[in-house]
Amino acid sequence: MPASYAYLGPEGTFTEVALRTLPEAATRELVPYVSVQSALDAVRVGEAEAAFVPIENSVEGGITTTLDELVAGQPLMIYREVLLSITFALLVRPGTTLSDIKTVTAHPAAQPQVRNWLKAHLPEAVWESAASNADGARLVQEGRYDAAFAGEFAAARYGLEALETGIHDSPHNAQTRFVLVGRPARPAARTGADKTSVVLWQRDDHPGALRDLLGEFATRGINLMLLQSRPTGAGIGHYCFCVDAEGHISDRRMAEALMGLKRICLQVRYLGSYPRADADTAELGGRFPGTSDEEFVAAAEWVARCQDGRF
Amino acid sequence: MPASYAYLGPEGTFTEVALRTLPEAATRELVPYVSVQSALDAVRVGEAEAAFVPIENSVEGGITTTLDELVAGQPLMIYREVLLSITFALLVRPGTTLSDIKTVTAHPAAQPQVRNWLKAHLPEAVWESAASNADGARLVQEGRYDAAFAGEFAAARYGLEALETGIHDSPHNAQTRFVLVGRPARPAARTGADKTSVVLWQRDDHPGALRDLLGEFATRGINLMLLQSRPTGAGIGHYCFCVDAEGHISDRRMAEALMGLKRICLQVRYLGSYPRADADTAELGGRFPGTSDEEFVAAAEWVARCQDGRF
Amino acid sequence: MPASYAYLGPEGTFTEVALRTLPEAATRELVPYVSVQSALDAVRVGEAEAAFVPIENSVEGGITTTLDELVAGQPLMIYREVLLSITFALLVRPGTTLSDIKTVTAHPAAQPQVRNWLKAHLPEAVWESAASNADGARLVQEGRYDAAFAGEFAAARYGLEALETGIHDSPHNAQTRFVLVGRPARPAARTGADKTSVVLWQRDDHPGALRDLLGEFATRGINLMLLQSRPTGAGIGHYCFCVDAEGHISDRRMAEALMGLKRICLQVRYLGSYPRADADTAELGGRFPGTSDEEFVAAAEWVARCQDGRF
Amino acid sequence: MPASYAYLGPEGTFTEVALRTLPEAATRELVPYVSVQSALDAVRVGEAEAAFVPIENSVEGGITTTLDELVAGQPLMIYREVLLSITFALLVRPGTTLSDIKTVTAHPAAQPQVRNWLKAHLPEAVWESAASNADGARLVQEGRYDAAFAGEFAAARYGLEALETGIHDSPHNAQTRFVLVGRPARPAARTGADKTSVVLWQRDDHPGALRDLLGEFATRGINLMLLQSRPTGAGIGHYCFCVDAEGHISDRRMAEALMGLKRICLQVRYLGSYPRADADTAELGGRFPGTSDEEFVAAAEWVARCQDGRF
Repeated sequence: MPASYAYLGPEGTFTEVALRTLPEAATRELVPYVSVQSALDAVRVGEAEAAFVPIENSVEGGITTTLDELVAGQPLMIYREVLLSITFALLVRPGTTLSDIKTVTAHPAAQPQVRNWLKAHLPEAVWESAASNADGARLVQEGRYDAAFAGEFAAARYGLEALETGIHDSPHNAQTRFVLVGRPARPAARTGADKTSVVLWQRDDHPGALRDLLGEFATRGINLMLLQSRPTGAGIGHYCFCVDAEGHISDRRMAEALMGLKRICLQVRYLGSYPRADADTAELGGRFPGTSDEEFVAAAEWVARCQDGRF
Repeated sequence: MPASYAYLGPEGTFTEVALRTLPEAATRELVPYVSVQSALDAVRVGEAEAAFVPIENSVEGGITTTLDELVAGQPLMIYREVLLSITFALLVRPGTTLSDIKTVTAHPAAQPQVRNWLKAHLPEAVWESAASNADGARLVQEGRYDAAFAGEFAAARYGLEALETGIHDSPHNAQTRFVLVGRPARPAARTGADKTSVVLWQRDDHPGALRDLLGEFATRGINLMLLQSRPTGAGIGHYCFCVDAEGHISDRRMAEALMGLKRICLQVRYLGSYPRADADTAELGGRFPGTSDEEFVAAAEWVARCQDGRF
Repeated sequence: MPASYAYLGPEGTFTEVALRTLPEAATRELVPYVSVQSALDAVRVGEAEAAFVPIENSVEGGITTTLDELVAGQPLMIYREVLLSITFALLVRPGTTLSDIKTVTAHPAAQPQVRNWLKAHLPEAVWESAASNADGARLVQEGRYDAAFAGEFAAARYGLEALETGIHDSPHNAQTRFVLVGRPARPAARTGADKTSVVLWQRDDHPGALRDLLGEFATRGINLMLLQSRPTGAGIGHYCFCVDAEGHISDRRMAEALMGLKRICLQVRYLGSYPRADADTAELGGRFPGTSDEEFVAAAEWVARCQDGRF
Repeated sequence: MPASYAYLGPEGTFTEVALRTLPEAATRELVPYVSVQSALDAVRVGEAEAAFVPIENSVEGGITTTLDELVAGQPLMIYREVLLSITFALLVRPGTTLSDIKTVTAHPAAQPQVRNWLKAHLPEAVWESAASNADGARLVQEGRYDAAFAGEFAAARYGLEALETGIHDSPHNAQTRFVLVGRPARPAARTGADKTSVVLWQRDDHPGALRDLLGEFATRGINLMLLQSRPTGAGIGHYCFCVDAEGHISDRRMAEALMGLKRICLQVRYLGSYPRADADTAELGGRFPGTSDEEFVAAAEWVARCQDGRF
């Protein structure tokens, strides 16, 4: 197994910053790839031990490229997630002032986050899209644009300086969620504040079909954290559902919910159980009556005693 | 263990006839008791191996005396059920004709079944209640009444003859269900056409509480065959629920449903799993998608493989 | 319309005491009938304006005789309910002492309430059943028995004295619920603390059928207060359900729930909406989010605006 | 009101072709806009009567740009939908043969649909993205690329010829759904085969919250055709749901479902009811027991009669 992690490059983006927050990243070679697909393929073919890619952000919701890769093809599993707050710096060549700026660039995904700032401070500036925020910074370094929106960390790499930092339009802190994806193996150990990801295909389509499917979680006191529909490829109106649910496959309630889904769905793809990145602030699962591991174990023991006639 | 079965007496009633349809009754001493309570107490104190009592009929529904005995006190378990079609004969002393009959008697429970017949054929006859149908026949033998409604089988015992047979008002064949009740032990073996009886106490009372409780059966494709509320003794409006559900505790779907009930209920009392008396005509369970034993086993194995990362 | 109320007699029973708590009873002639059936028939044929009968008690649950009369035959409606706490007095001829008592009597329904007291204080006394508690008192007056359990109020009527009062085995105060039943007319006015009674027949029997039926109440935040199954007469295992639910048919949530039941049930019989007898202690309905009349009205207005394209 | 329809340009794309299938398009001026946002803004500010934009396709699912515009900002309503099967032609300058092609272009959305064809027939060709398929065709005309994937209809406009037609990778016919969006007004008339679109915001997040929300459709027999989560802007993990459901707001079942959603949701945005583009092949709604308009009307009348005591 190569001791390398593939990630969505280029270097100097938020993805790399997020990846470096993982302790295990310090001991791996970190290799940028040009696309989510190529990073995940590197894992599939054994070029990389794991891939680190964005999967959800507070502006776009689920990142469909990543979800579609996980939904189809050779199975992969999620082992870790990282949440990164995204704020932009306005990077310029040293000496540039605000009034010098006629052109700005960044990855199109940055635009919704800086639009209001731009309108307020640089109403006349012309926007052109770059292939990545890092690439935008490089183009400023090369003199192609006057300024780039990028992570503040990119300034040093490209010899730029940050004229402004902490730029983000959203009243709520913009966040992106990244996942570390590998080939199927034993899931990450249960921490008590975990998340489980699955893809669900309905057996048939009738009133209540999706409600019943979600009921497998609900009746066991499991909260949902993401529900993202993705086309199955069978034509318009045909969807599967990417679901993130609160808890670990080793939690009894989750194991039983997954069993229930497996029984009633056409297909279920397990994408892993892994520690929640927001474990410090999260309310923990199993807090609804009758859904703790202890209650599941006690109930199973009671049924076993009934089956033996001892009670 | 005494090789005797207690039953709700006296001799010569439908209960005894029903009991004698059980093959195992041939090898036991059959002992009549004056009440359901006394017959069940005989089991509880070890005087009898089992008790045979009525539990449901097509006129009264659940027999509350029997249900209340099973709901409270030292736990008992149901091992067998018997369905008996109830039709009455009009028993008279030999030589009596219809026009001779001025007084008729029977147990009060018989009245709803013969009322229309009586109105049509003996509109002037005076009805008086007897302690049992067998006792009514005895009183006719003694000359106290002119005729008794009872099972045709009682004629021989009391030296009477049946002036009319097959009397039953209900357009549908009147039936009574009897159960053989013993101390808790291993349930009757699964036959594939079984019934499971439980008593359920809700944890609390809120909109949807009872619906959610029934949902534990419904989401696993389990049909209900009886739902009878009984007072808990905590005052008016406080009920527990006697439930008969389709299937055996060894069926995976039933075991999981019982676990679910155990988790969400204040209390669950298991009353046994036993062969359905109507197995020949019944549609079998597990016929809903995703609820067969095979699908439960496959789903459990799939979850286990996911937990190991092998899929 | 005759200004008379039929009630389950004889005079001097708890039923009469309960009936006299209704202000309107003061202006009617109160006529005892020998049975629930005959009292209700008096209403059906126009002999009485209304009938007052027991419908539920804390020992027996729903009174099946009454429920079966309401379920079948010419429709009737409930207009009032009364809750009466039931405690017994031990009535004897003046001069009788506890040690003189060899025989006791009362209606069989009294037995579960006095059994423990009897065992503790008169373990040797022989019990024989009477047709009613009032009749038991009369038989003591006539010297047929030494003592009768009855309401303390019966002592004066029969020239007896109460050797003991406040007898009731149940740790919780035993209560009986009575209803005033008339021919169908406009329901009792809404008070804000009401109860609605219906009988429900399922369209077919499949897993979840009863759950879905109860769901019509649950999804509209309506609490259930009684669910009593009664045989439909179509043979064993065929039941309809007598339901008491919290709220008035004029409450929007209840009207919509009844509409839902009407649509999905084979048949629904409306038995009336009437003030709760426990209004002083009850939590009121409509306290669940989205279920108040105001929210129903607002939602209906919103849909109407959408249908007009004004929003 | 200007008699013009804005549409997502440029001219000569699938969007224009789809728009021209609407009879009413023949009497309007059709004005291309550079983005979905600008086309919808043209409606909002009154520059255009309506806008025609893609909303869902069989590869991408819901088009998030369009959904996000409908979810937020000044309310808009959908009046029509069009389904268009998407197949590509390979357009070249006259005389070009397959072996001449070194470079190909098209809008990035075309890539998933032609990837396999490209690998099989032009494995060496270099792909570069164009701003639109029409723009790609223009660039071929100008000699910048050798071939463009576009609709066959674009050939004539740009003086190109189709070397190959009917290209689509998906085994199922690729389709795009377009909608005609205007300012809020009376919805399109009910045809009996309609679709209703809404956006739902949950009141709070707890296990079962989304299930209960979908239950408002399910309990009224309403099928869902699209469920697409979109970020609310309140940070990661906060979603609203764009739902397409079978039926018209004038259908009783739909009106009641919308009322239910309005009551239990934090917010509901009605996006319109309009004829289904697949009406010829669709199974119609209201085919589940108890959900037809007739049954709703009958149930409402029954409740009204109960409220009056006439039944």
